[in-house]
Amino acid sequence: MIGRTQWAIPEGFIPETSHGPPEMESHETVCLLNATDAAAHVAMTVYFEDREPVGPYEVTVPAERTSHLQFNEFDDPEIPRGVAFASVIESDRPVVCQHTRLDSRQAENALLSTMAYPGER
Amino acid sequence: MIGRTQWAIPEGFIPETSHGPPEMESHETVCLLNATDAAAHVAMTVYFEDREPVGPYEVTVPAERTSHLQFNEFDDPEIPRGVAFASVIESDRPVVCQHTRLDSRQAENALLSTMAYPGER
Amino acid sequence: MIGRTQWAIPEGFIPETSHGPPEMESHETVCLLNATDAAAHVAMTVYFEDREPVGPYEVTVPAERTSHLQFNEFDDPEIPRGVAFASVIESDRPVVCQHTRLDSRQAENALLSTMAYPGER
Amino acid sequence: MIGRTQWAIPEGFIPETSHGPPEMESHETVCLLNATDAAAHVAMTVYFEDREPVGPYEVTVPAERTSHLQFNEFDDPEIPRGVAFASVIESDRPVVCQHTRLDSRQAENALLSTMAYPGER
Repeated sequence: MIGRTQWAIPEGFIPETSHGPPEMESHETVCLLNATDAAAHVAMTVYFEDREPVGPYEVTVPAERTSHLQFNEFDDPEIPRGVAFASVIESDRPVVCQHTRLDSRQAENALLSTMAYPGER
Repeated sequence: MIGRTQWAIPEGFIPETSHGPPEMESHETVCLLNATDAAAHVAMTVYFEDREPVGPYEVTVPAERTSHLQFNEFDDPEIPRGVAFASVIESDRPVVCQHTRLDSRQAENALLSTMAYPGER
Repeated sequence: MIGRTQWAIPEGFIPETSHGPPEMESHETVCLLNATDAAAHVAMTVYFEDREPVGPYEVTVPAERTSHLQFNEFDDPEIPRGVAFASVIESDRPVVCQHTRLDSRQAENALLSTMAYPGER
Repeated sequence: MIGRTQWAIPEGFIPETSHGPPEMESHETVCLLNATDAAAHVAMTVYFEDREPVGPYEVTVPAERTSHLQFNEFDDPEIPRGVAFASVIESDRPVVCQHTRLDSRQAENALLSTMAYPGER
């Protein structure tokens, strides 16, 4: 039952522009792994520098499945482009979270990734 | 005896295309370090968004050796290209795991890396 | 109340040159998330290879806000360009810290990111 | 006294080629931060896939200083280029370790970085 029920990602930024074909569109991703034998109900809150947090954005990750979610696709409300944000992920089952960005503002893409920070529980 | 016996990597993606010479082929790697004085028997399970997990893929890392394994080279079954996946690594000896991707879909390569997430044991 | 009150980032380097428009200027960032319900008072100390540490640089992160700070913009004293440094971040409230660099010394930008190292408290 | 006395980095690879001016030479770095008030004596062992480990490579990090060491510059013996390796870092004082690579095999550079894995002590 590897994982935790709370995670944080202080970095967040959806570049406003992109180059290349659709799969190279700039994006900010949180990858969730639920290696347990029951569905995990996940709620994500997004924090900003100068306004109230938004969310929770809710998603269910089935048992023994991964979900790679793009902040670009969050709606109600949408995450603004070109603005610094951060996120906290909470789940009713242990999950593991990793943060990845593809930045294609310039002709060649750049990547970053890090494991999210696990809470104590 | 640095390390843990269980690790998770929520991010996984083998780009479908590459540019450049063979050593620049897009690849997804898990680097294992066995700094102990006995061989570690490692079993890896791969999780997807919309299908059952596959594996375990088994490998032995000798005492005081590292193995840099490419998911590209897993077979029986192969990991599909262009599909999101995640992995759990289990070992009978403490090991340390790091995840690295080289993405050469565009003319210049991009890199990401992070330490995998260690389980409690 | 996710987070810790002490963090370290051994890597630090502000490239001396950049390419592209202003938002692509090379920069070294520490992203702070304060997910608690009270302001966090943060003090950062910067360490070098061959001279005394400088700081503390102080910043307040309001409750339920993130701050993405660029070492480029620290003053009194400024962080020299092209010089290796490291940093320790201390806060009176739990925060979460992530380190990101955009390097645009060449025509296309490169990115790195990692969660900072959390202290025991 | 933030830090640990044992760290591991499973990933290691010094690209055989580079593009650009000297500061853009491909390199593999371990960044050490000694935020304590006494010198740290650090010993690094390098592990390979198919041969015995080498080292220890020894370095002293003064009190309240950082050292950004390039595996490229290790000698007696040199680390071979184009070969997978891993490393364990041990110190008599708490330090913090981060791993960074600049890969300039292609015309534009790529970067990766992650915090090293801290041992239990």
